Amino acid sequence: MQNQQIQALLSPTSVAVIGASTRPDTVGRAVFANILLGEFQGVVYPVNPKAYSIMGVRAYASVLDIPDPIDLAVIVVPARVVPKVLEECGVKGIPAAVIITAGFKEIGPEGARLEAQIRDIGRQYGIALMGPNCLGLMNTDPGVRLNATFARSMPLPGNIAFISQSGAVGVAALEYVVGENIGLSKFLSVGNKALLHENHLLEALAADPQTDVILLYLEDLEDPKGFIELARRVTEKKPVLAIKSGRTREGARAAASHTGALAGSDEVYDSLFRQSGVLRADTLEELFDYARALALQPLPKGEKVAIVTNAGGPGIMATDACVRYGLRMAPLTRETREHLRSHLPPTASVQNPIDLIGDAKEDRYALALQAVLDDPNVDAVMVICTPQIMVDLEAVARTVVQVVTRHPASKPVVACFMALEGLERVLAILDEARIPNYRFPEAAARALAEMVRYTAWVNRPRTPVRIFDDVDRETARAIVEKARAEGRTFLPEPEAHAVLRAYGFPTVPGRLARTEDEAVRAAEDIGYPVVVKIVSPHIIHKFDVGGVVLNLQDPDQVREAYNQVLARALAAMPDADIWGVYVQKFLPTSKGLETILGMHRDPHFGPLLMFGLGGVYVEVLKDVTFRIAPVRELGAYRMLREIRARALLDGYRGQPPRDIHALAQCIMRLSQLATEIEAIQELDINPLLVMEVGQGAHVLDARILLRPVQEG
Amino acid sequence: MQNQQIQALLSPTSVAVIGASTRPDTVGRAVFANILLGEFQGVVYPVNPKAYSIMGVRAYASVLDIPDPIDLAVIVVPARVVPKVLEECGVKGIPAAVIITAGFKEIGPEGARLEAQIRDIGRQYGIALMGPNCLGLMNTDPGVRLNATFARSMPLPGNIAFISQSGAVGVAALEYVVGENIGLSKFLSVGNKALLHENHLLEALAADPQTDVILLYLEDLEDPKGFIELARRVTEKKPVLAIKSGRTREGARAAASHTGALAGSDEVYDSLFRQSGVLRADTLEELFDYARALALQPLPKGEKVAIVTNAGGPGIMATDACVRYGLRMAPLTRETREHLRSHLPPTASVQNPIDLIGDAKEDRYALALQAVLDDPNVDAVMVICTPQIMVDLEAVARTVVQVVTRHPASKPVVACFMALEGLERVLAILDEARIPNYRFPEAAARALAEMVRYTAWVNRPRTPVRIFDDVDRETARAIVEKARAEGRTFLPEPEAHAVLRAYGFPTVPGRLARTEDEAVRAAEDIGYPVVVKIVSPHIIHKFDVGGVVLNLQDPDQVREAYNQVLARALAAMPDADIWGVYVQKFLPTSKGLETILGMHRDPHFGPLLMFGLGGVYVEVLKDVTFRIAPVRELGAYRMLREIRARALLDGYRGQPPRDIHALAQCIMRLSQLATEIEAIQELDINPLLVMEVGQGAHVLDARILLRPVQEG
Repeated sequence: MQNQQIQALLSPTSVAVIGASTRPDTVGRAVFANILLGEFQGVVYPVNPKAYSIMGVRAYASVLDIPDPIDLAVIVVPARVVPKVLEECGVKGIPAAVIITAGFKEIGPEGARLEAQIRDIGRQYGIALMGPNCLGLMNTDPGVRLNATFARSMPLPGNIAFISQSGAVGVAALEYVVGENIGLSKFLSVGNKALLHENHLLEALAADPQTDVILLYLEDLEDPKGFIELARRVTEKKPVLAIKSGRTREGARAAASHTGALAGSDEVYDSLFRQSGVLRADTLEELFDYARALALQPLPKGEKVAIVTNAGGPGIMATDACVRYGLRMAPLTRETREHLRSHLPPTASVQNPIDLIGDAKEDRYALALQAVLDDPNVDAVMVICTPQIMVDLEAVARTVVQVVTRHPASKPVVACFMALEGLERVLAILDEARIPNYRFPEAAARALAEMVRYTAWVNRPRTPVRIFDDVDRETARAIVEKARAEGRTFLPEPEAHAVLRAYGFPTVPGRLARTEDEAVRAAEDIGYPVVVKIVSPHIIHKFDVGGVVLNLQDPDQVREAYNQVLARALAAMPDADIWGVYVQKFLPTSKGLETILGMHRDPHFGPLLMFGLGGVYVEVLKDVTFRIAPVRELGAYRMLREIRARALLDGYRGQPPRDIHALAQCIMRLSQLATEIEAIQELDINPLLVMEVGQGAHVLDARILLRPVQEG
Repeated sequence: MQNQQIQALLSPTSVAVIGASTRPDTVGRAVFANILLGEFQGVVYPVNPKAYSIMGVRAYASVLDIPDPIDLAVIVVPARVVPKVLEECGVKGIPAAVIITAGFKEIGPEGARLEAQIRDIGRQYGIALMGPNCLGLMNTDPGVRLNATFARSMPLPGNIAFISQSGAVGVAALEYVVGENIGLSKFLSVGNKALLHENHLLEALAADPQTDVILLYLEDLEDPKGFIELARRVTEKKPVLAIKSGRTREGARAAASHTGALAGSDEVYDSLFRQSGVLRADTLEELFDYARALALQPLPKGEKVAIVTNAGGPGIMATDACVRYGLRMAPLTRETREHLRSHLPPTASVQNPIDLIGDAKEDRYALALQAVLDDPNVDAVMVICTPQIMVDLEAVARTVVQVVTRHPASKPVVACFMALEGLERVLAILDEARIPNYRFPEAAARALAEMVRYTAWVNRPRTPVRIFDDVDRETARAIVEKARAEGRTFLPEPEAHAVLRAYGFPTVPGRLARTEDEAVRAAEDIGYPVVVKIVSPHIIHKFDVGGVVLNLQDPDQVREAYNQVLARALAAMPDADIWGVYVQKFLPTSKGLETILGMHRDPHFGPLLMFGLGGVYVEVLKDVTFRIAPVRELGAYRMLREIRARALLDGYRGQPPRDIHALAQCIMRLSQLATEIEAIQELDINPLLVMEVGQGAHVLDARILLRPVQEG
């Protein structure tokens, strides 16, 4: 999409409303009236073949009749007429259009066909096309002032932009921000996303000087891979916050791998947001709570919060909330405490939370606020003020504004005036210094915590996606392609290990043996003890058929195991094609710590990587973490810290600390393998046995499933 | 406390305000004015030795001068004068008093002494004394209408009572309920709780016909044991909801037992509320969100929710929230779906959530709401309405009220009108049918979820505290008392096992051996394999000193082990008094599942019981659960289901299901032991090895610590 066309969409100087109407209770009436009466700074043209004028403005039968150039067409005609009028927009060379009309893919196959048609027209003429089935768009910039929606109210100008995939959620958000006096820069309702989707608009808002914080309401992502790349870039400069709803719609997938079975779409979205630096909220209230702090206040340097309050109870609640959301209570310096001690009454608490006591007037607030802003141990401040008999809330608010405005320290300050009466005046005063107020301390604490998270993201070490040049792509590809050529979708273990070996994974020595004698020879070469596992392209779950015997110490045991696993496998699956057994060096799992590393290629998201500890941790506790490949070095290490049982990697009860570098290497190699060999559909290394620091890790068992040829 | 005195406190007909004043900005002015101007239905008398009249009302120098009897004294004089005026109240026979004055134990030792003095006076005269250092009390009953606080506004009458330990949180709550038009029956600020505390008031409110829901803001509990008993009774009839703040103040305890180390006060409060049926909230907003639903709507029969919406996005958000908070989406019956299908437009969704589509008017709401109220699969209903061009919010609200009011089904209905403009009228309409409205669907879902929790509590099976009559209290007590008489606070294993055996725990056979030969004889009697453990009153952590050797198969191994553990113990602790070794039957832990069962006697809460799986589960994952003893049969079984790794008890990966009855028995026996032998301070059974169903459990290792004699 050309930048110029997006510009025309977001900041048009001339707008045609196709389907403008004067009939009450119609969208065509509402949209036209909103633009005309909303002090649009450009020119609006109603288009309606049956009208001479609409609300006193000269109407045209078609955009083709309008003598002037048009930046943006807002289309509200019935669905079946949309292709025709959109075509006319194209002919006239209108660079941008919003189709508010509903009745497209959301109503079924017929609508979907119509939507495909308008997509084609949009593409053909290169129109920046938003919608259909959307609420429209708003731009509050005083130089534009466009309300091209049918919503009842337009928010104040501000530096927060909102992109909504749901019109109704958009309306709810607009009603909320208007009620709360929250300013927006742009409001964009993307609807069915026939052409423009969240990525295009996110990119445009990243470059928008009026926008400092970008909010998204999403039900899905059109292009997740592109979103990750883009969001990583955008979040370098502006916080991006998202609600992703529809969390519980999709059940667990049916998949042969652990990774596939555990990767519910919600976990995937969590990883996706985490690796792209997008902050996730659950509710609109949370979303705007976070956004206000990020839009109005400077970022904190760290996570240490000071609380100034005139009452103990709310101070305790605020402390609870800070700790709950991962903040720390700032340990005030001795100077700060002594200063407070010598100026505050003896009953005041000069420990954090600083309790000024109920009879505190604004002077005590000034003193304490100044002190914590001065204190190098304090990264962020929460000011709590409850109505008390002596307190003049407005005076306190004015004092807070004065101190904050004059203070050179760039520390975020949030307020919590827990009052109703007189609150409006208080809020107006706080607005001057762009200090967000929260009704209760919990919301203030949560907003500070999100600021800290965003700061941590911005300050994270930048690491590359590592490309290992010691990998032998050709060998790996050849194994995969040979199997696919034979119509197989499963790589038995000799092949799976060979693929991993080619990608530099620390596989343990092993060899395919087709006869009892070959098995013994392999064992002799590899060295005892060994393990023997059945090898068949038809037996994916070899443990379930008794196809594995561990810890074989001598030739006799190998022979016995050979015959045993063959007999069991054939008993369980008489028609299975048996290649022989895999004779592999036996490593007792007790020598290390079992982990699981897996990959599942999602049709929508691409390759998902999963890491966890093995056995109970993955199967009962579901203590695993995900990333979408490619994963960067930092991401690989972070995965190791995200599991609940992470302490086991550090060593526990006389167990040594584990070789996390070897694990991170394996994660990055898997990321590369998943990216380079797309024919691999699923892969589980289970267990990946990690040894103590410096001793590496060992791939003990691996399972690789392929995409069938016809698919790919 | 006499019922009559509490009655005088809550519903007085005559009130004396001692310290009433006309000076502006004083508490004495505010309180008196609030009573006088707040339409109090009784008589208020100002008491002020320096005034002839206060606000036009005849003033008295002392309560003793008032010619009429007084029900309630509201005291706002300076702290040092309080004892004198309270004494006068006693002399006059005033049955109840509220001391609003601050400056008592919250300011330090001097204040604490003053507080002790007023407590004594209160006790001496049998005064129902609330405070000091509190906000006062309100009774909105039209027959009383008392606002004996210095808060700025009085809420509407309603059926929710609020008890606050913090004056400021009380003020914040009052401002909130006034702003949200939430009705209260009583507001009680308990302050320092010199005499009356939450239990007294909870009991009074339980009997109050004006109150249906009781809310508590707590920073601590005066009498936790009494609270549990009382709350269990009160919650039979009325929901009790609590915020307990100060969650993060107390760090982990320094304790020799796992139980002691893991029992942070917040976990304990969680257990306490769980076992007393009190619903816990984190914020005031949550508290009132839950309270409104419970106060206004009938309880749901089950957890199946139907959602009726005019927009997809909010419907999805509501569904997400319902599932997140543990509700289920009601599977509508075929009849309901067919009925909806034949009456709604084809684009509407007749699956739950029922999407009436943006152009829905009130008729569709009537149809859908009627249908879900009729549907036997639906336990509760959420109605969502977003502003749309065609929708008349008030008409929808009226329709909802009509349908709900006329419908015979007693199902809770909550609303979510996501609008700002016109909301006030909508709320007024919904109020008629006592339908609570929530700004966003998440809050509505959470409130329904709390209703479901309360219903589950009310409908739980009632089980007794089991008293096992096969226990040998005398033996157990004798062992404990002998140790204490010898100045010991630790029971070495022979004693610990003997105590447990006396209480019917399944200890494995074991014997103290003082010499190598005795050890061998013990092993022969018990039967191999055995384990040998050092026994010393000075060695609590015997594993740490190498004082345990497992799996001994013959006399030689026992001899070697005997000498080994003795040598190691003496090397590690040369001054330790060594009694010998404990020779115990060896059971490999792999035959069962390791669990931990412990007890820690908290000075405030009494005996806390802890259950979890052993090893990593307790030490790394802290996957444990608590109860305060005595625990009932249901509670014992519930503990087993509360750990995250509970699936391991059901059997996992070829492991058999475990004998949960044996575990529940052990929990109940421990509860009895903890209750009956108070000299036991801490106790850990670790591991308590649970076998498969029907095979019981085994106490493999036990540690018991005692309270020193001087304490107890």
